Amino acid sequence: MSAANTFRNILRISVLWAMLPLVNTTDRIQAAAPNFVIIFCDDLGYGDLGCFGHPNIRTPNLDRMAADGQKWTSFYVAAPVCTPSRAGLLTGRLPIRNGMTSPKRVVLFPDSGGGLPAEEITIAEILKDQGYNTACIGKWHLGHLPQFLPRTQGFDSYFGIPYSNDMHANGGVPLMRNEDVIERPTDQTTVTKRYTEAAVEFLKSQDAETPFFLYLPHTMPHIPIFASNDFKGRSSRGLYGDVVQELDWSVGQILQTLRDTGFSQNTLVVFTSDNGPWLSQKLNGGSAGLLRAGKGTTFEGGMRVPTIFWWPDQIKAGSVVTEMGCTTDLMATFASLAGGSIPNDRTMDSLDLTPVLQGNGPSPRKSMFYYTRGELYAVRHENYKLHLRSREPVHYGRPPIEHDPPLLYDVEVDPGEQYDIAEKNPNVVARLKRLIEEHRSGVQPAPDQLAIPL
Amino acid sequence: MSAANTFRNILRISVLWAMLPLVNTTDRIQAAAPNFVIIFCDDLGYGDLGCFGHPNIRTPNLDRMAADGQKWTSFYVAAPVCTPSRAGLLTGRLPIRNGMTSPKRVVLFPDSGGGLPAEEITIAEILKDQGYNTACIGKWHLGHLPQFLPRTQGFDSYFGIPYSNDMHANGGVPLMRNEDVIERPTDQTTVTKRYTEAAVEFLKSQDAETPFFLYLPHTMPHIPIFASNDFKGRSSRGLYGDVVQELDWSVGQILQTLRDTGFSQNTLVVFTSDNGPWLSQKLNGGSAGLLRAGKGTTFEGGMRVPTIFWWPDQIKAGSVVTEMGCTTDLMATFASLAGGSIPNDRTMDSLDLTPVLQGNGPSPRKSMFYYTRGELYAVRHENYKLHLRSREPVHYGRPPIEHDPPLLYDVEVDPGEQYDIAEKNPNVVARLKRLIEEHRSGVQPAPDQLAIPL
Repeated sequence: MSAANTFRNILRISVLWAMLPLVNTTDRIQAAAPNFVIIFCDDLGYGDLGCFGHPNIRTPNLDRMAADGQKWTSFYVAAPVCTPSRAGLLTGRLPIRNGMTSPKRVVLFPDSGGGLPAEEITIAEILKDQGYNTACIGKWHLGHLPQFLPRTQGFDSYFGIPYSNDMHANGGVPLMRNEDVIERPTDQTTVTKRYTEAAVEFLKSQDAETPFFLYLPHTMPHIPIFASNDFKGRSSRGLYGDVVQELDWSVGQILQTLRDTGFSQNTLVVFTSDNGPWLSQKLNGGSAGLLRAGKGTTFEGGMRVPTIFWWPDQIKAGSVVTEMGCTTDLMATFASLAGGSIPNDRTMDSLDLTPVLQGNGPSPRKSMFYYTRGELYAVRHENYKLHLRSREPVHYGRPPIEHDPPLLYDVEVDPGEQYDIAEKNPNVVARLKRLIEEHRSGVQPAPDQLAIPL
Repeated sequence: MSAANTFRNILRISVLWAMLPLVNTTDRIQAAAPNFVIIFCDDLGYGDLGCFGHPNIRTPNLDRMAADGQKWTSFYVAAPVCTPSRAGLLTGRLPIRNGMTSPKRVVLFPDSGGGLPAEEITIAEILKDQGYNTACIGKWHLGHLPQFLPRTQGFDSYFGIPYSNDMHANGGVPLMRNEDVIERPTDQTTVTKRYTEAAVEFLKSQDAETPFFLYLPHTMPHIPIFASNDFKGRSSRGLYGDVVQELDWSVGQILQTLRDTGFSQNTLVVFTSDNGPWLSQKLNGGSAGLLRAGKGTTFEGGMRVPTIFWWPDQIKAGSVVTEMGCTTDLMATFASLAGGSIPNDRTMDSLDLTPVLQGNGPSPRKSMFYYTRGELYAVRHENYKLHLRSREPVHYGRPPIEHDPPLLYDVEVDPGEQYDIAEKNPNVVARLKRLIEEHRSGVQPAPDQLAIPL
């Protein structure tokens, strides 16, 4: 090879190198604050994914996400129903602290006048302060009046259905862009597809200089369930399976876009659900697997959700975390990774899970407080869970069943909550009761936002 | 670099290449008939492994086996209890055809005088004819009298407990080597460990010239459950979790031995269970996940078992099969791969699953007949399952509940068998009834072997 040829070859390799967007982009963003994506399904049950044990709903993208990421098997939501669960995730606080759980109304409705109070600080606001681009694409359900919509809570833009897709007041379910209704009734057959396209478009519009936060709360698989033509009739599990398989496709699109744009090495993606399966919907609802009960209850099936954290190179592929975590912890975790901090002027319920993601420490979360309808129903500390009251099945018009003495389960030995061991463990019951008293002394219930009329 | 140095380096690489036992061994055995290993757990439930959705039993070796192999989510056993299930697996025939299911006794007991008839042909005999070395290590339960022990049915050697580990007649549970009792009562705390050591020793003693078949039916996690000191107290699921985690360790030892010996590229390993979880044992029994009921019943939880096929390079890593398969199909599958054939002088229930393993065809199994206590209880054809009778929970002394009209479930749409759809689908009911008649006309129940006294 002549010297000139050698030089030309070196030059060609250099040019090729410079042309590789992935390599350069990755190098550049690696130093910056990480990006965050939350994919939040609606009423997806603990047992509805292949990697969480469903026999025939096909979820190859989520199974691959778990194989490449971290599967959490004791990850909780802040409440077993929609509105308070979302409030908990976005504010890092139990909904009892911001009026987003109520003894009078379970969630917000189209005739509700309330919403997440402006003084509440969301993950989007924390990250906005750190210079992030932010977008909310999907179901909001934290107030549909203009003063409560996503752009008042730190999001640069909004696209989606502002409440549950079974709420049909005034001409059907609205689809909104920012504060405007752009379609009514919404064609729900394409809602997963359109959310996904909007999410992919948002991701592709980002550059490496500015970190981003995408909050993607899907409308599905909440009833009435719909799949697009590409997915309808594709699953052997029926329409519910079709819908979950379209969500799985959506996850695949998001992760592939992150890989294609070179953002994947610097983006933490969290997949989870807002509460357990809506069992009374029968075959249009999902399954909690071996967990007891579902949506609306404070048994494990109502509040433990299938969760995957994904961050290539930062999270050990195929790791499984059986320790506890909660959606309220995402704020402290994201703030820690972004170099920000969580509010210090109010009581928070947000713990930094970074050590678990990085594989260098235990989960800081040792306790969970299970609230619904504005009341504390149960507490878990380490492996023990004490039920003060419960609902199973969910009776909307009726009061809960009071457990006096309380029920005690070891939810590690007995994840299905079948065998009450209170009588044999009076010391554990006493310890958990003290924990409840301690917790209650630190809770100042906020004015009820859900019962405010329009 | 001088020419001499270059030559020395090339030489060194060649020598290293020649020294790599894996490469050479693999090349050599690739051409030979494949080896087979069946790891058969006792009473392990559909929901008891991480990769089948258990939240906190840690099964990293089985999860890895599934990730590297093929996970079957509609794989069945031939009966929901021990003796007939084993008879079905080893003979490729429904136990009704060889007298191994009885209305009088559920399984064989220490006071039984019967066993698998000598004229029955087992997988071991088929493979023996093909020149295989064969070993049975573990629980036999097809007759404990000398004329019924493994060496009368094609196995070169036997080591293990000849029936269930809760059968305490005459001085406790015996441990046997070939036809001799070598320990009584058996120290069950080390039984999983000792089976594993014996299995590893067998594998290490094999050479590449002669193919082998190892049948490893574990005694655990059948009650009374025991874990060795290395595993006791290690699982957050309690002793049952410890026991399953020791079985997972055992699987890891088997697969690692196959890798270390270079046999892995030419060995098909099948992991499965003999029936569903023994739910009445409460926390000492397992879980069927979202499937209904457990051991002793003909609901899915009794007969659908967590199954993994593993064969590096031959089976596509991470594949999931939702089509049907049955333990009775292992004989035809092994025979096909070994170049042998199944018996043609009797009715067989064994279908060749090779196309599914190789990823080039559908499963030939479209129907399952659910027998227990010498009677047909239910039939599945494609997605539909018809129950003629059932037991739930299992009442040993009582007759089954007769379903007239029968119950019909779509077990793909409704894997938990919750919603009877018989009334709305009279044509499906009629079709399945015809299938039952057709099946019955081809079944000649054999003389009851289980009720024969000692």
